[in-house]
Amino acid sequence: MIVDRFDERPEEQVTNYGSTGTTIRWLINRDNGARTFAMRRFVVQPGGEIPLHGHEEDHEIYILSGEGIAFTSNKEVPIKADMFLYVPPNEEHGYRNTGETPLVFICVIPLLD
Amino acid sequence: MIVDRFDERPEEQVTNYGSTGTTIRWLINRDNGARTFAMRRFVVQPGGEIPLHGHEEDHEIYILSGEGIAFTSNKEVPIKADMFLYVPPNEEHGYRNTGETPLVFICVIPLLD
Repeated sequence: MIVDRFDERPEEQVTNYGSTGTTIRWLINRDNGARTFAMRRFVVQPGGEIPLHGHEEDHEIYILSGEGIAFTSNKEVPIKADMFLYVPPNEEHGYRNTGETPLVFICVIPLLD
Repeated sequence: MIVDRFDERPEEQVTNYGSTGTTIRWLINRDNGARTFAMRRFVVQPGGEIPLHGHEEDHEIYILSGEGIAFTSNKEVPIKADMFLYVPPNEEHGYRNTGETPLVFICVIPLLD
């Protein structure tokens, strides 16, 4: 069993998809022995965004704190602490922090191939 | 994309393994289209416990609030909010709330078969 604090994992800027004001920490990954899915922790600063994008991996997300909007190609949904999201494979999606505090969430993805 | 609050999912008492003072909500499961892993939210009341047990599914856990102890057959580790755990397949494990507030955590498991 591995037990650790989130801030023992390195924090990296998210730059893909034109993301702004967003960092990621990979908490549990193949390095820790995970075989089928990985757990990451994102922080999106006020005004920051992960723009609309899509990929084969689905997402299971739990919002830890803050508020914002999750969007697909045809809808926007308000999100805040204690909400969860399921994003199916290949559905385009993005997130924006519309609040005044960091938007923090856990995002679990499958480890494909 | 599915977006919902955790308390829109039914809360069920956990009775397996002799668990006490513990409830579960299945947030994301096959019903929502998930194919490879499921997200659940546990609440363990003060003094409550999920006793030592094992199974093929590994666990990726993030502690939302509270404090307690995670244990295996040969060690105990303190846990609290903002810690994460990886429990490998078939490693016996359990949790106990040793604090005065609910111990709340997200636990993601693979959907086997």
